Amino acid sequence: MELVCVEDFELQADRKLEKIAKDYYKSGAGDQFSLRLNREAFKKLRLRPRCLRDVSQLDISCKIFGQQQKWPLGIAPTAMQKMAHPDGEIGNARAAGKAGSIFILSTLSTTSLEDLAAGAPDTNKWFQLYIYKDRSLTEKIVRRAEKANFQALVLTVDAPIFGHRRADVRNKFSLPAHLSLANFKGEQANGVITEGGSGINEYVASQFDPSITWQDIAWLKKLTHLPIVVKGVLTAEDAVLAREFGCAGVIVSNHGARQIDTVPASIEALPEVVNAVGNDMVVMLDGGIMQGNDIFKALALGAKTVFIGRPAVYGLAYNGQKGVEQLLGVLRKDFEITMALTGCQKLTDIKSAMVAHESTYAKL
Amino acid sequence: MELVCVEDFELQADRKLEKIAKDYYKSGAGDQFSLRLNREAFKKLRLRPRCLRDVSQLDISCKIFGQQQKWPLGIAPTAMQKMAHPDGEIGNARAAGKAGSIFILSTLSTTSLEDLAAGAPDTNKWFQLYIYKDRSLTEKIVRRAEKANFQALVLTVDAPIFGHRRADVRNKFSLPAHLSLANFKGEQANGVITEGGSGINEYVASQFDPSITWQDIAWLKKLTHLPIVVKGVLTAEDAVLAREFGCAGVIVSNHGARQIDTVPASIEALPEVVNAVGNDMVVMLDGGIMQGNDIFKALALGAKTVFIGRPAVYGLAYNGQKGVEQLLGVLRKDFEITMALTGCQKLTDIKSAMVAHESTYAKL
Amino acid sequence: MELVCVEDFELQADRKLEKIAKDYYKSGAGDQFSLRLNREAFKKLRLRPRCLRDVSQLDISCKIFGQQQKWPLGIAPTAMQKMAHPDGEIGNARAAGKAGSIFILSTLSTTSLEDLAAGAPDTNKWFQLYIYKDRSLTEKIVRRAEKANFQALVLTVDAPIFGHRRADVRNKFSLPAHLSLANFKGEQANGVITEGGSGINEYVASQFDPSITWQDIAWLKKLTHLPIVVKGVLTAEDAVLAREFGCAGVIVSNHGARQIDTVPASIEALPEVVNAVGNDMVVMLDGGIMQGNDIFKALALGAKTVFIGRPAVYGLAYNGQKGVEQLLGVLRKDFEITMALTGCQKLTDIKSAMVAHESTYAKL
Amino acid sequence: MELVCVEDFELQADRKLEKIAKDYYKSGAGDQFSLRLNREAFKKLRLRPRCLRDVSQLDISCKIFGQQQKWPLGIAPTAMQKMAHPDGEIGNARAAGKAGSIFILSTLSTTSLEDLAAGAPDTNKWFQLYIYKDRSLTEKIVRRAEKANFQALVLTVDAPIFGHRRADVRNKFSLPAHLSLANFKGEQANGVITEGGSGINEYVASQFDPSITWQDIAWLKKLTHLPIVVKGVLTAEDAVLAREFGCAGVIVSNHGARQIDTVPASIEALPEVVNAVGNDMVVMLDGGIMQGNDIFKALALGAKTVFIGRPAVYGLAYNGQKGVEQLLGVLRKDFEITMALTGCQKLTDIKSAMVAHESTYAKL
Ligand SMILES: Cc1cc2nc3c(=O)[nH]c(=O)nc-3n(C[C@H](O)[C@H](O)[C@H](O)COP(=O)(O)O)c2cc1C
Ligand SMILES: Cc1cc2nc3c(=O)[nH]c(=O)nc-3n(C[C@H](O)[C@H](O)[C@H](O)COP(=O)(O)O)c2cc1C
Ligand SMILES: Cc1cc2nc3c(=O)[nH]c(=O)nc-3n(C[C@H](O)[C@H](O)[C@H](O)COP(=O)(O)O)c2cc1C
Ligand SMILES: Cc1cc2nc3c(=O)[nH]c(=O)nc-3n(C[C@H](O)[C@H](O)[C@H](O)COP(=O)(O)O)c2cc1C
Repeated sequence: MELVCVEDFELQADRKLEKIAKDYYKSGAGDQFSLRLNREAFKKLRLRPRCLRDVSQLDISCKIFGQQQKWPLGIAPTAMQKMAHPDGEIGNARAAGKAGSIFILSTLSTTSLEDLAAGAPDTNKWFQLYIYKDRSLTEKIVRRAEKANFQALVLTVDAPIFGHRRADVRNKFSLPAHLSLANFKGEQANGVITEGGSGINEYVASQFDPSITWQDIAWLKKLTHLPIVVKGVLTAEDAVLAREFGCAGVIVSNHGARQIDTVPASIEALPEVVNAVGNDMVVMLDGGIMQGNDIFKALALGAKTVFIGRPAVYGLAYNGQKGVEQLLGVLRKDFEITMALTGCQKLTDIKSAMVAHESTYAKL
Repeated sequence: MELVCVEDFELQADRKLEKIAKDYYKSGAGDQFSLRLNREAFKKLRLRPRCLRDVSQLDISCKIFGQQQKWPLGIAPTAMQKMAHPDGEIGNARAAGKAGSIFILSTLSTTSLEDLAAGAPDTNKWFQLYIYKDRSLTEKIVRRAEKANFQALVLTVDAPIFGHRRADVRNKFSLPAHLSLANFKGEQANGVITEGGSGINEYVASQFDPSITWQDIAWLKKLTHLPIVVKGVLTAEDAVLAREFGCAGVIVSNHGARQIDTVPASIEALPEVVNAVGNDMVVMLDGGIMQGNDIFKALALGAKTVFIGRPAVYGLAYNGQKGVEQLLGVLRKDFEITMALTGCQKLTDIKSAMVAHESTYAKL
Repeated sequence: MELVCVEDFELQADRKLEKIAKDYYKSGAGDQFSLRLNREAFKKLRLRPRCLRDVSQLDISCKIFGQQQKWPLGIAPTAMQKMAHPDGEIGNARAAGKAGSIFILSTLSTTSLEDLAAGAPDTNKWFQLYIYKDRSLTEKIVRRAEKANFQALVLTVDAPIFGHRRADVRNKFSLPAHLSLANFKGEQANGVITEGGSGINEYVASQFDPSITWQDIAWLKKLTHLPIVVKGVLTAEDAVLAREFGCAGVIVSNHGARQIDTVPASIEALPEVVNAVGNDMVVMLDGGIMQGNDIFKALALGAKTVFIGRPAVYGLAYNGQKGVEQLLGVLRKDFEITMALTGCQKLTDIKSAMVAHESTYAKL
Repeated sequence: MELVCVEDFELQADRKLEKIAKDYYKSGAGDQFSLRLNREAFKKLRLRPRCLRDVSQLDISCKIFGQQQKWPLGIAPTAMQKMAHPDGEIGNARAAGKAGSIFILSTLSTTSLEDLAAGAPDTNKWFQLYIYKDRSLTEKIVRRAEKANFQALVLTVDAPIFGHRRADVRNKFSLPAHLSLANFKGEQANGVITEGGSGINEYVASQFDPSITWQDIAWLKKLTHLPIVVKGVLTAEDAVLAREFGCAGVIVSNHGARQIDTVPASIEALPEVVNAVGNDMVVMLDGGIMQGNDIFKALALGAKTVFIGRPAVYGLAYNGQKGVEQLLGVLRKDFEITMALTGCQKLTDIKSAMVAHESTYAKL
């Protein structure tokens, strides 16, 4: 049967993945309230489509940090993609490249950043950074990313430790033995092994530095000339700090609802961030994007581009690189339909008045 | 068993129709949020009935574009009705005529407008227009509609392309071979054949002109003396443009939630349109009408008449012309009960204060 | 098993009653949105209980039209009670008398008002009036009610015709042949026989006068010295008219959601009526009362007493007079618990600040 | 399988407990609306986490009435704990002591306060008081509690009688014969025996004094030097009275929704109490706490510590003292994760701006 929407890919992935991997990819923190909210919050926004505008030619390209992008949807960093499919990060990144999507590689990838760069040379790549207690490790990886031609550094700021994902604890999650965190060697590479609970959480607790602060942005800026994006901001207050400390961009994100439960959906948090820093920084979003509609709404509220995490993993699990290509095709087509049917010829035609909260209609 | 409400007809139609046709008729766009919303939004409006008014004689007639109508419910244009029942558009239109309902014929009918006019001479008929890339086709069809005594032109403005209706793609929808789009010849008549996805969407993409703008209203006005109604407006902004460009009426509609998902229910969008242009244009509505209550609420909020799409198709599928007659009988009776029990003797007795949003009651 | 709440009685009644009677008693109009709402709306009100008040002695008596009542819960008029149990109206009324509850006899009773008065002499009885096309019938029945010592006339103003209760139409409801509308003779007594649809609706359509207006209150006032209560008011506007026309009381009611669907729950409509006329008239309520809580909330919002319709029928169906006694016992105990646990010693201790709408808590 | 959240303990307890005990522990009043609300209301509050703060060292200790506590979670008083597990109150209290949690012993315990004190000498213990009709009993028990080194008196003010818990009535609840209310002798010890309904309710009705008022606080203050906490306040008005009468603290609580149904969730009522008396009294909360999130939210809204009732009973039922230890471990870890992931190093870092009501996000 034809796969016509992201849910279809999710179903296929559910069938292909083993329980332990499936649970790892799908879980959210706590009782997964925000996981559901990430998707449902989009449904509380109504589109206000305009008609009788020439939509025979659509142009959905955009510029991010001065670089032309084919469209405003990229791939968010997700760890350990080879668990989903042997094509792993390279498959995902190649598909992204073909679709003209930015690909963000996770620090915790099962492919080294150098191999990824070699395997997907034509993809616009960003590198997602976690800061290790051993700062020299981090310093080195930043230099390696620069050298391998990554175009931006995405510092994930919502993960001093990892959230409580119940299934991973129950499953005593470990990275399968034939895989490793390929950016590293030794215990940093092979440490995702359960010591009774979730192996990835235990790894993070032992390796990541939970004492990092905004001062470390200053440190990072000295290390690199790449634009620094902070990922995981949910408040205007932190967005303002990001601006103060010289970040170029911010990804409004709750880490796919995997860190703390009952945080706002990222689309709920977007407006306050855009209000605070939208004129000065590139505001982006991930979390819960499932359709063309969702992309459109995020842009209408001020995001410059959005990213998908799980959907790409579902495409990968379903059919490797080809699966991601197919998934991106579905999403692109769906977004173009939304553009045409809202009367938008190009991204700048998307106005905030084209999206209204349901509460607007909750009166006469 | 007696069919006592529209849901009963829907159930009967569900049994009679083959999957591919049933899916085509019932589907909405995307994950069908607005499809459900079209019905549910009516439930958020409370009736405030008045008592001890003489309701022994009811008069529910109305005037639309100067023509007397028996009651404020007509049949919205729906494509390819012979798929539902051999009686097709003629059966539907005759039933409408008997009930005193306006019948709007779709451009995409399986009966030619001339045959329809001949088959249902006593019905008040309007013609729904899609503008083809080949403008001469459209010009010709307008002249034919005038000649066949259609009383208004309904330009559908929410469909430069067709929305993503997942079931139609999965089913690879094609028009059954024994049917054709009877207003046309050649590929325009027989082109609803899948090329891998939804045959109707592919037809529309190849035939309809997605570059039409408000200027084309000017062009159309020169072609015809008929009143022009724009169908598919959901915002005050577009209603104001419709007035500016000389349209006589507007149908507030989201195309039965078949174009883009997460748009407002038509009853949600009605107030802003009435506020903007209600004094100057005939504002009408379709979408989600299932009961006498719903008709009443739309009128209370300023619509002059409403239309039903799917319900009529369900009546047709259930039992051809007779099924539609029966359905209209049920709706008429239900509307009369609403009139009597709200204390309204005639349509002008329906006041806006007789409908309150549920939020009115969400405080003490 | 012990029956501990109204729902338990409902379940027992469900088992005992035949489908046609059960459907008749339980149905609401349309798709029964307001039927559910009548109960659910109480759940949107929060109790704000006060503590450390002496509740060792409770006094829940009240005065209505100058007459002392043991507590603020009476029995609403419901038609044809012998269908539920041979004890019928007399059983219901006797149980009411024992509990100190007002009993309102329906015009459409299966026991004549004289028999009822003879069978339940110690019960405080009111008579519910429908106005027949044949006014002499109505005139006579008013005189008979006075003579039989009924203490108030309750004119039902929300039923010029009867609402569309789908099950009754499907069931082609008729009153069983061994029963009749015992206040009448001939066709008025035996006319509840289906002619294709709901026999009771057909009866009403042929017998009741749908042309009655507020002027008929004037007519009625001349006929009788009894206090006149209008039953079925849902708006401040009509309550004001009731005051203008000299009514002594008003029952805020949507007729158990049996007339038009999507009207407000009676507890939703209560505040506007109390605001408008609460100082001048006795405002009462029926609809959806299931617990002590519900009684308390209605009083807190300004009702002087409440009535139950279906719950009493459930008690009757379960076990005749004994069943109603038991049901009233459960409700009385539940109301006393509510009094004690909110810190109220007598009804005047119930203050409006003890009930808050949930929206009060929907912010920080 | 590893138990990773309170729900897991609840499931285990469900399996271990006999129906009559399980129903007793789990029930709420009426139809248990507020029981569900106690948990759900927390879900209407969103966390607004802050990032890039040094969370390498967490300090979650607090001071209550001048005494240092390891963390802001204690055990609420619940009656008759030996029904859950032979370890009973001592097991629960020892686990509390190990975790550094305050333990509140119920008047209605199946272990005498002296035995409890002897069995759990290192636990910080408070005594929960019910006032008996026989005041000398109460006087004696207060002196005994002082002597046994309890640190505070918790007067439960929401229980002049007990609420209507349907299951207990249906089950004709009695305390198993081998157990007694160990603080007493004779009928006060052995009186929890059904006389047809709920044995515990009947006991309370015959023994507790429903005439107590705020004046009895004055009486109590003369009896004891211990700080007096009133438990069961849901309104600002009563909190103000508590301050006036010299109470040291107040526990915002609806008694686990066991008294009257449709009262606010305790987390809903917290803000008005904090606003009214938060600067002058120690405001605490119990009801619905299931996760680290919930603790955090209560503190953010102004509670100084929170208590759990049922969760501890579930731990006890699952595995006695060890079960409670394990449960407290899960909750502590979960709370620490919340601290780290909201960027809070110590309790005073928890600011009210870190919690927002969902309505904050219900607009653009
Ligand atoms: C399986 C999985 C692994 C993830 N790994 C990382 C990661 O290594 N680094 C990171 O910054 N975010 C990570 N995230 C968060 C994603 O970058 C992104 O924020 C999130 O997936 C977006 O939500 P979505 O899955 O609803 O699209 C991960 C998310 C998932 C689902
Ligand atoms: C099966 C189907 C076919 C339709 N075809 C057309 C069409 O050809 N032209 C058009 O303007 N609208 C079309 N519509 C939209 C209807 O005119 C109308 O807006 C909608 O059905 C109203 O909603 P309802 O179905 O809830 O009553 C179609 C709708 C359906 C369900
Ligand atoms: C089976 C049934 C018959 C009724 N018959 C009458 C009637 O004869 N006259 C009348 O004024 N109201 C009648 N009512 C309405 C009741 O008086 C009352 O308004 C309603 O039952 C209250 O709602 P409740 O059933 O939720 O308590 C009837 C209601 C029911 C359920
Ligand atoms: C089984 C049970 C017994 C209780 N017994 C008492 C009691 O003896 N005294 C008292 O003040 N509160 C009592 N409570 C109320 C608790 O102290 C507390 O307010 C409530 O359990 C908190 O809600 P939670 O169960 O959701 O944590 C009891 C609660 C339960 C569930």
